[in-house]
Amino acid sequence: MSREAGCPLCEADGGVVIARTPSYRIVRADEPGFPGFYRVVWNDHVREFTDLDGAGRALCMQAVVEVETLIRRHLQPTKVNVASLGNMVAHLHWHVIARYDWDSHFPGAVWAAQQRTTDPARLQALLPHRDALEAELGKPARPA
Amino acid sequence: MSREAGCPLCEADGGVVIARTPSYRIVRADEPGFPGFYRVVWNDHVREFTDLDGAGRALCMQAVVEVETLIRRHLQPTKVNVASLGNMVAHLHWHVIARYDWDSHFPGAVWAAQQRTTDPARLQALLPHRDALEAELGKPARPA
Repeated sequence: MSREAGCPLCEADGGVVIARTPSYRIVRADEPGFPGFYRVVWNDHVREFTDLDGAGRALCMQAVVEVETLIRRHLQPTKVNVASLGNMVAHLHWHVIARYDWDSHFPGAVWAAQQRTTDPARLQALLPHRDALEAELGKPARPA
Repeated sequence: MSREAGCPLCEADGGVVIARTPSYRIVRADEPGFPGFYRVVWNDHVREFTDLDGAGRALCMQAVVEVETLIRRHLQPTKVNVASLGNMVAHLHWHVIARYDWDSHFPGAVWAAQQRTTDPARLQALLPHRDALEAELGKPARPA
């Protein structure tokens, strides 16, 4: 496995691991105010999506699609945001984020300026649905 | 073709069209300070990436991969940013953006706060390379 010294995503999982394969892991990001914020993190230290071959890209996007599908099914967000940026940590990871028209940054990106304070009751109400999402996402029989 | 009244990406191309197929177009975004900022816009009005079937998703990501590949080849950015957000315009489009460590927002997202003023000479120097990129991207023989 390819690792780079000092890379935070080589040295740690980068969040609460919900699913893990030899190729990638799916983690819940620790981002307050965004209970449905997941990352698909490639295990090898690769910089860009196009550093993967076609089979790797397909596998990676299949995981992104699975997370988006389960976010829609369980969390019913206003919109799903998907992004691979990596300007800060150039180790391939896809953000897959449930966004709501009442969240702190909507309709801006989560990286943009905060627009409002989030109602804690709305966040709290999502937690049982998130548990159900994560139970389904964590099921075995995941392709390598 | 599915269209929605009032949707800016149903009513206009959304940028300078570099390539067009029956399924999608690739446009250069009008984003000052970011000369290598492209969007893959799905022609039909679909909201989420997972509203496409597997064949549509593969075709769409193949276009994203092609843009990223040509950005890397011709513009040699510090990092490529790829994102499908759609909070403002919920019509499927992928941003594919050449980022440089000297650009106005790096290492932040382009949607985050500006960090510096960009040197116009550096932007200018990219333009011939962008022309070469777009000549290659605009070549015919693109799968539908």
